[in-house]
Amino acid sequence: MIVRDFNEILKNDQSRMVSDAKWTSVRMLLASDGMGFSFHITTLEAGSEHTFEYKNHFENVYCMKGKGSITDLATGETHQITPGVMYALNNHDRHTLRAEEELVMACVFNPPVTGTEVHREDGSYAAADEG
Amino acid sequence: MIVRDFNEILKNDQSRMVSDAKWTSVRMLLASDGMGFSFHITTLEAGSEHTFEYKNHFENVYCMKGKGSITDLATGETHQITPGVMYALNNHDRHTLRAEEELVMACVFNPPVTGTEVHREDGSYAAADEG
Repeated sequence: MIVRDFNEILKNDQSRMVSDAKWTSVRMLLASDGMGFSFHITTLEAGSEHTFEYKNHFENVYCMKGKGSITDLATGETHQITPGVMYALNNHDRHTLRAEEELVMACVFNPPVTGTEVHREDGSYAAADEG
Repeated sequence: MIVRDFNEILKNDQSRMVSDAKWTSVRMLLASDGMGFSFHITTLEAGSEHTFEYKNHFENVYCMKGKGSITDLATGETHQITPGVMYALNNHDRHTLRAEEELVMACVFNPPVTGTEVHREDGSYAAADEG
């Protein structure tokens, strides 16, 4: 059994925290944990906007706190995001996420993120074997 | 893109809700969604105690609200559960979960739950092919 505490990691374990332009992600579970998925708590700054496209991953995102919206860039459809709303990128959907208020999201990636990926210019993570 | 709202499901979609002795689970994502994992929001009643052993699944659980504890029945070790604490049953660990206050948990299962499983007497779910 693995037990980890988000608040403890924030205080004492920078190695599990990744930040980029106006977002921070705490990697609670990574590929090395052997669960077959990774689990992250991601915080997006109020007023920020992000375009991502996980070409090599499925991602599920559950809003725990905050207010914002997501636009599916293939269809142009926009959905409001409030606590309790979940979106699943089952088609590797290219999307724009906007945080009207700070958003705190629980995120699951399949295949699991290894922890060494960076967002590329196209908003994707490389597949593990692309380095 | 799949978008679902926990609060909407609570009001209007009993088909996604499963209840057993003193717990309720809202199945936000199931095997049929094709993400390779399932995602559930599970609420455990204050004062309740539960023993589970997912022999056929990995489960990750993140506490969003409440207070309780988990005991690993193999080692006897007990961990406190408060918001931000996560436990991952990477060894299919048999465990007892206690809710001192109502617990609200975000749960991920791999392989994904199909939605038709029931908890068996040993606290497990059958594998999909065990029916």
